[in-house]
Formats: sequence, structure tokens, C-alpha cells
Amino acid sequence: MTVGSVRAAVVTVGEELLSGATVDANAAWLGRALGALGVPVERSWTVGDRDDAIAESVLAAARVAELVIVTGGLGPTEDDRTRPALARALGAELDEDPALVRHLEGRLRASGRSALSDGLRRLALRPTPGRWLANPAGAAPGLVFEGPREGGWVIALPGVPREMRGLFPAVADFVRETFDGRLTPVLQRTLHTTGLPESELAPRVDAVAAEVGEGVEVAFLPDLTGVDLRLTTRHDGTAAARAAAEERLDRLDHALRPILAGHRFEASSGDLVETVAALLEARGWWLATAESCTGGLVAQRWTARAGSSSTFRGAVVAYHNDVKERLLDVPRAVLEAQGAVSEPVARAMAEGVARRLDAQCGIGITGVAGPGGGSEEKPVGTVWIAATVPSNGAAPCTRAGRFQFGGDRESVRVRAAQAALHLLHGMLEGGPFEPSSARAGRE
Amino acid sequence: MTVGSVRAAVVTVGEELLSGATVDANAAWLGRALGALGVPVERSWTVGDRDDAIAESVLAAARVAELVIVTGGLGPTEDDRTRPALARALGAELDEDPALVRHLEGRLRASGRSALSDGLRRLALRPTPGRWLANPAGAAPGLVFEGPREGGWVIALPGVPREMRGLFPAVADFVRETFDGRLTPVLQRTLHTTGLPESELAPRVDAVAAEVGEGVEVAFLPDLTGVDLRLTTRHDGTAAARAAAEERLDRLDHALRPILAGHRFEASSGDLVETVAALLEARGWWLATAESCTGGLVAQRWTARAGSSSTFRGAVVAYHNDVKERLLDVPRAVLEAQGAVSEPVARAMAEGVARRLDAQCGIGITGVAGPGGGSEEKPVGTVWIAATVPSNGAAPCTRAGRFQFGGDRESVRVRAAQAALHLLHGMLEGGPFEPSSARAGRE
Repeated sequence: MTVGSVRAAVVTVGEELLSGATVDANAAWLGRALGALGVPVERSWTVGDRDDAIAESVLAAARVAELVIVTGGLGPTEDDRTRPALARALGAELDEDPALVRHLEGRLRASGRSALSDGLRRLALRPTPGRWLANPAGAAPGLVFEGPREGGWVIALPGVPREMRGLFPAVADFVRETFDGRLTPVLQRTLHTTGLPESELAPRVDAVAAEVGEGVEVAFLPDLTGVDLRLTTRHDGTAAARAAAEERLDRLDHALRPILAGHRFEASSGDLVETVAALLEARGWWLATAESCTGGLVAQRWTARAGSSSTFRGAVVAYHNDVKERLLDVPRAVLEAQGAVSEPVARAMAEGVARRLDAQCGIGITGVAGPGGGSEEKPVGTVWIAATVPSNGAAPCTRAGRFQFGGDRESVRVRAAQAALHLLHGMLEGGPFEPSSARAGRE
Repeated sequence: MTVGSVRAAVVTVGEELLSGATVDANAAWLGRALGALGVPVERSWTVGDRDDAIAESVLAAARVAELVIVTGGLGPTEDDRTRPALARALGAELDEDPALVRHLEGRLRASGRSALSDGLRRLALRPTPGRWLANPAGAAPGLVFEGPREGGWVIALPGVPREMRGLFPAVADFVRETFDGRLTPVLQRTLHTTGLPESELAPRVDAVAAEVGEGVEVAFLPDLTGVDLRLTTRHDGTAAARAAAEERLDRLDHALRPILAGHRFEASSGDLVETVAALLEARGWWLATAESCTGGLVAQRWTARAGSSSTFRGAVVAYHNDVKERLLDVPRAVLEAQGAVSEPVARAMAEGVARRLDAQCGIGITGVAGPGGGSEEKPVGTVWIAATVPSNGAAPCTRAGRFQFGGDRESVRVRAAQAALHLLHGMLEGGPFEPSSARAGRE
């Protein structure tokens, strides 16, 4: 192990993780937090509440990394085995720390309770030599020891996520001080995109990154709503190095703009609703949605955000054709001639819901989510989507597109809802769906 | 290791798990699936995409368990290192399997594509000796080897959750056959409940379980929609022992019925929508929903299920009061006198949407999801919910209740949607909200 390459190993303790009663979210959180601190995680172990298993794993972890983080098993019951296991692994005594007893008694007094129970008193036991870190969110302290390898350290933290996270700033301080000059902090930036599959996006992005992305790794994080690009670079922690790292991210970010045009959106939550809602809010416009196959998914996503009542009038989930006719004024003749999944129906839904609900902007979505209901002409995954916005002229401007989504029912619905927001976003921003664009209308 | 105590160890491969870019949900799934099969997980490892790390962990895993499951690193790229690492750990050759080549070519032809790419061809490499399991959800096969310890086995599965789960039935068959008579299978039954908090449910259930639940563990699995009770018992795999275990579950299940009355529902998916939809389907009735604070959440949940078009007419998301008036005929005077969050508005919404959308059954939900909008009289979390169903008389039967939900915006919305389904369920089943019940009407 060379200077400048401190790595971490994680040992997670808990039968409930092995049995699958609990999903281990601590591991991913620690991976991100330690990575950002400049100590990437090299390997991890999950073990049950048994002294030998914990001790063995801590020793194995110390063989692959200088910093071992143990989480879990620090509570006050007999089943909490991390303290004795650490004493065993480190060849240390398990002693009661008088300062810890006073700390625990102080906590109790502050909450108006009296003497330490036997269980709580067990929290003052720790292998010696070593030190402890106060837990801002609970009783069990963090524990810090040197060893078992030369120059290595073991830090034990409670497994309760809130407590583990609450103790992390103290861990970060300790790590920065102890491994000073040997960390490589990570700087990351996430660019949100939608409407381009990873298979189209990746080659274009990789080509740009090859030219101007030196020192920056690009990861593609696809989900049903789009692909996030995560740009990662490292630096040595000095202010100058950090500024240079920011500069590397800026350079690549800027060079990617033309490629991502019409697909990128800015949203701190990563949710395109945030972006589109801000555009409506700025104009003082209302949205209403008319949804068939998405069954209210756009409305539900929109209203999941606090404050949505200032931009959202409401929605009509027009699942049955009668509802499209009665509440959205889609002409029966059009439904019969073109079918419910068609451009004129999507347009009539978007315009009808905007008119009926007195909104400037409307969305219409009609499609075949599957698994049944497909035909040769309109297979499962066929969705017509329309959006309408005010135009400078008298009539509103309505655009529509035909989409063919892959995947199961859930995938088709989620992708269709996102595509509708993307269409509206483009129209509000003058993106690829602006009136003059070749991509507007049928596609 | 004694007979009757076969245990598993899991090695999960992927840098994205160590860095925290992905939360490892496979581990918990495997823990549950292997536990149910009678092979509890003893310990697990997570490693990056490196031959030495994978090989070391597989060898360490084989020291603590007879069955080692490796997931991840089986894909077609150079970064997928599980195949060469296994060959190294097992001291085996890495050869192309002609039967696997034919299998992969057959898959390609079935999807209308032509020759195997170099990447796909790599999927036919496997350490020899060994066998493979066809992947029903993807190209990469599962791989099965004897060793590295005497009587031990290693099974490698793709890391893509859908593919890993798709291959599991073949793994289960193999494990049952190989470790015949040495498994302690788990028998579980899940009882779904809604509308009773865990703090009320648990003491009542525990009291019954103490009397008639010998040999059965009861776990409470709460989420925002309710509390599942998971009953678990073990047996030794013989038919007689299995029958006795079923009997233990039946006895406790039966004894719990009176306690859970009005709150329990049967649904293979665990989703109350399934239960209520089946009741509507059986009567040939339609549902329509009118939703304010839930923003279409009931509609969205209902239509997420395939086949919902035979029971669901549609919904009106009446976020703005104008929409409640125009599309649902809620009288303006009532909105002004009682406020939007009130019993008469909830009732008018349920009845209005059923009438307007030509459905027999209607749901109306109006409340304060927060974080803003609360008042002393109607604090955040106040929700009025109404449901209407046909009655024997001329007028439909409508019931309403006032609820006070805790938690954040998301919690209030999810709980309100579930409470609406629970109210309708009770009315259809004649549960606690039947017309004669003391709990009906205002509460």
C-alpha cells in the first residue's frame, strides 16, 4: 500500500441483513461518504451477531485496507457482540471507560431520567487502548482503535442509519487528520438527461470525454425516466487542486452541452417535474393533464411535490372511452374512426383538459401499456402524447408525437409520463419540439 | 458442519456496490430466498471487479459454508471478471462450452438477430468441469461447480436482479437435490392488514401467539399502507413434518381472525387494490375516483395492475376548487361554507365522480397533505375520505370518515389512498364501515 492510496474496508454486523429482513442501505451510504472523503471502499463483509465471525472479518478487512469501518452490534443487549469481538480481534481488554460512564450519565440527566441501567452501562465498555466519539443521535458512542495492522485503524459505529450518519462528521475529521496528505477526495457532478437511450447517448458522450475529459470519469446511470451522467474527478485536498478539479468538470460539462441539447434538464431533485413546474411558475401558467394509459401518473408525480397547487389545476384520468368523450370533449366519431390510441385523440385530450380545467397548458396521453390490448398496427408500448401551450397567435400551440416504448406495463407507463413532461419542457424552452422543429408533430 | 445444517455464503461482485452508486438489493433477496429454501446465509462479501478479490472471497466463503452463491460479473465485457476469477479459485480451465454456444445462438435467432458478437461469445466460457443453467430473462447463463471444498458447491448468477431472480428456481431445484435431507426449510405465511398501527396490533397478536403460536415466530412488517404479519416456522423437509408445520400456521392464522377482522385482506400481491378490484369484478361494478390531496394516487395504483380497464372508469384529480365544482358538481356554497377539506365535500366528490363517470362506486379524497396549508382546526394530515356504493334502496350508500395522518407529505398521501381503499373494501365486504356500524359516518 503506497502513500496516497488509503483505502477502506467495511464490516456490517447483523443477522437481519443476512436473513434479508432488512436491506443494507448503510453500505451504499458509507461507500459514497468514504469515496467523497477520498477513501474508496475496497471490500466489504456482512456477518451475523457472533464474536468469532465479527473478529475474523475485522482481521480479514484489516489485511486489505488501512481503515476498517464496522457498523452494527454496538447496542445495549447481550446480542450486541461488536465490543467483545473487537477486543478479541485486537488482543485488547474490554474495560469500562469512566469518562464514557460520565458522558452517558450526563445524557440521561439531560433527558430527565435517573441512574444508568445495566444495559446502558454496557455502552461504556470498550477495548483499551482506544478512544470514543460522542453520538449526537443516540446513546451508543463510536469507538476508535489503532491496529490490528501497523498504521491501520478500526472505527466502530452503531448500525442504526440515523446514528451512523450522525457520527460520520466526527469520523471524517478523524480520517482527514490521521491520513493527512494521503487522501484523494472525489468531486462529482450529475447531469440529468431524458429522451435519449444510453445506447445513443454513451458513444456521443464518450467521444467528447475522450477529447476534453482528461482526469474525469463519466458514469451512465440509466433508469426508466432517463440517463444521469455522473462526472467524477479526484484531487489531493488542497484549495488549488480542488479549483483545478472544478475546472475539469466545468470544461467537460460545457463541451457536452451541444450533445445534450434538448435532453438535459436542471433539477436539484433529479425530477423533470421540478424543472417544468419552475417554468410554469415563472410565467404564472397552470397545467392540467388528461391521462389514459398512465392512469394519473403525471398528476401523481406533479402533486407529490410541495407547492404544486400553484401550478396544477388537476387531471382527468380518462381510462374508459366514455370519459374521454364526456369530460374531455373528444368527439365520439374520432374515437371510432381513429381509435383511442391516435394522434387526434391525444391532441383533443390535451386541448380538452386545458379548456375544461381552465389551464394554459395541457398534456394528453393515450397508449397501450400492455400486457394485453396490443395489435399489429399498435403493438404494446405504442403511446401518443400531446402537449398544448399558449402561443402568440390566437389559437394554442399543440404538438404530438408517437412513441414506441419497450418493457413491461410499469416501464411503458413511467416512460410515457416522462416523455409527456419532456415534450412540454421542450415546448416551454423552445427545444426540439418547438413549432419550427423537424421533430415536432409525428415521429 | 453437521448434517442438517447446510449454510450458504454470498459473494456479490461490482464496483458500483462498493462506491455506493447502487444499493445492493440482491443480498436481502437472496437471504430471504435461501432462508426459505432451508439454507440460511452465514456470511457475505462484496468485492470489486478484480480477479484476485473475487477469487479470494470465493475461497474464504467456501471455508464458512458449503454453498457459495456468487452474483455479478458474468456479463459480456472485459470488466466482467467472475468467470476467470472462478477458474482461478477452483484451479480449473476456462473453456468455451459448445452446448452453450449453440444455446446462445438459438436465443439470438429467436429474436431475429444474426451471428454471436465476440462479447456474447464470451458468455459461453466457463470453468471446466461444471454445468450451466439457462437464464430465462437474459443471455448470461448461471454456472455451477463442485468445490473448492469437499462436498461444497459454487453457483454463479448474473447480478441484474431480474436475471438473478429468474434463475433462482433452477438454483432451488439443484440445492434441494444436492443437499437432500440436510435442509431445514422455512414455511412462511404473510397476513396483510391495514388501518391498525403496529402499536395497537402487536400486543393483541402477541397475546394470541403466546397461547396458540408454539413453534411459530411472528414478525411485524409495517409500511405506510399497513402492517404485514409474517408467520414463520421450520421443519425437516419430510412430508409429515411439513404437514405439521402447515398445521401450526393454520392454527395461529385461525386464532388471529377475530383480532384482525375488518383489517385483514387477501391479496397475492399484497396490494389492497387487488382485493377490492376482485370484489368489483365479481359484481360487474365500475369504480371512479375523485382525488384532491392524493393527486391521482389511487387511480395510479389501480391502473398499475393489468386488466384494470374492466373495473376502472377513470378519475378526476380535482386539485383546484374550480375543478371540484365544474367536473364533480361540488356546490360552490358548500366549498365556501365548509371548506374544501370537509365531510360534505368528500361525499359530493365521491358521488359526483361516480355519477359523472357513470360508475357504481366512487371514492372522494380531500385533505391537507402539507407541509403548508394546515390550520388549527384542520392541521396537516387532516383528510376527509368518502366512498359510495350501490345500495338496495334507490339512493346509493355513501360513508365518510375524517382521518388524521402523521408523517410527511408523501406519508399522508400514501396513507390517505390506502384508507380510501380500506373504506371501500369494508363497504363492499360489510366490514367496519357497513351502514349499521358505529364506526360509519363521522369518526
